[in-house]
Amino acid sequence: MHQDRLARQLDFLTEADKLKSVLRGTTLCDGSRRENSGEHSWHIALYALILAEHANRPVRIDRVIKMLLIHDLVEIDAGDHPIHGDHDPSAVAKSERAAAQRVFGLLPPDQGEAYHHLWLEFEAGETDDAIFAKSIDRVQPVISNLETDGGNWHDFNVTHEQLESRVGMKVRRGAPALWQYLKARIAAHFDK
Amino acid sequence: MHQDRLARQLDFLTEADKLKSVLRGTTLCDGSRRENSGEHSWHIALYALILAEHANRPVRIDRVIKMLLIHDLVEIDAGDHPIHGDHDPSAVAKSERAAAQRVFGLLPPDQGEAYHHLWLEFEAGETDDAIFAKSIDRVQPVISNLETDGGNWHDFNVTHEQLESRVGMKVRRGAPALWQYLKARIAAHFDK
Repeated sequence: MHQDRLARQLDFLTEADKLKSVLRGTTLCDGSRRENSGEHSWHIALYALILAEHANRPVRIDRVIKMLLIHDLVEIDAGDHPIHGDHDPSAVAKSERAAAQRVFGLLPPDQGEAYHHLWLEFEAGETDDAIFAKSIDRVQPVISNLETDGGNWHDFNVTHEQLESRVGMKVRRGAPALWQYLKARIAAHFDK
Repeated sequence: MHQDRLARQLDFLTEADKLKSVLRGTTLCDGSRRENSGEHSWHIALYALILAEHANRPVRIDRVIKMLLIHDLVEIDAGDHPIHGDHDPSAVAKSERAAAQRVFGLLPPDQGEAYHHLWLEFEAGETDDAIFAKSIDRVQPVISNLETDGGNWHDFNVTHEQLESRVGMKVRRGAPALWQYLKARIAAHFDK
């Protein structure tokens, strides 16, 4: 029993390694290469830890961090879909749901179910923890893009208005002070 | 004040991005490239989350995860030193201490001090949380090496005995069931 449990846990953790090979739309802050979803997950967990005090409503930071550590695992099967890219949201959601079933299904059933639920909570974006987690997930690529003189905003011809509606709205919902702080820097970029 | 605080926090988080460019001795589980310390930090945080029940003594998993998220930041200045590689431990320790001072010093003072202390606790490896965190940090590259038919054990001519003394001892201290479980697979590798 104990052996089988550990076998499943290690299978899951080895499968998770594949997230390091899923490339995102954004680059590192020095522009040297595209970021992968594994290192992105680390970075936003650190973001959440450091910026927790700016959450719009009180959050349980340990739950937020758990969410962020597991939120992208579905991309092992479903791939990353840049927010400014062209894709069918309902097709993506469908393939991510199937991926969640498979990937969390590798774990012992009690853990698989718990993390599957946590992923669904993140996706739904309705609890205070999920709202803050999503704001952090959205704000980190904004910083990468600002650091690289616009980064993938150029690739996707993103306007200031599109950034506000696709990203700003979500960040403001979970961490308004953060978006307020970035506003001037973002405006300066788009006014150039 | 609020503005200055956010400025420092975001400076720290942008500096942290550099950890994604620090390459480690081990590769991904598919052997395609060397792992970096950012994605490694994500992976071991996930390891700790999933394997917490195997800790030798009860741990506060949220503290363990915080430790693992920040434990490698010193490598931005000090670089990664593979455990089986040839280096002067006291020189490495000295450069890591200086790095901790600089990197955590970027944060607002209250946070900088708290994370600096947490890093020192991890380094000292004496509390139950730090002992478990270190066992997880050590066991993940073992799995990568097993997945890649020995991986960097070949580069460093590591023997079964060296692996036991350099790695096994630490893993057993924090998570004995885990090392026990891996023993047969490790023996099979070295007996080939």
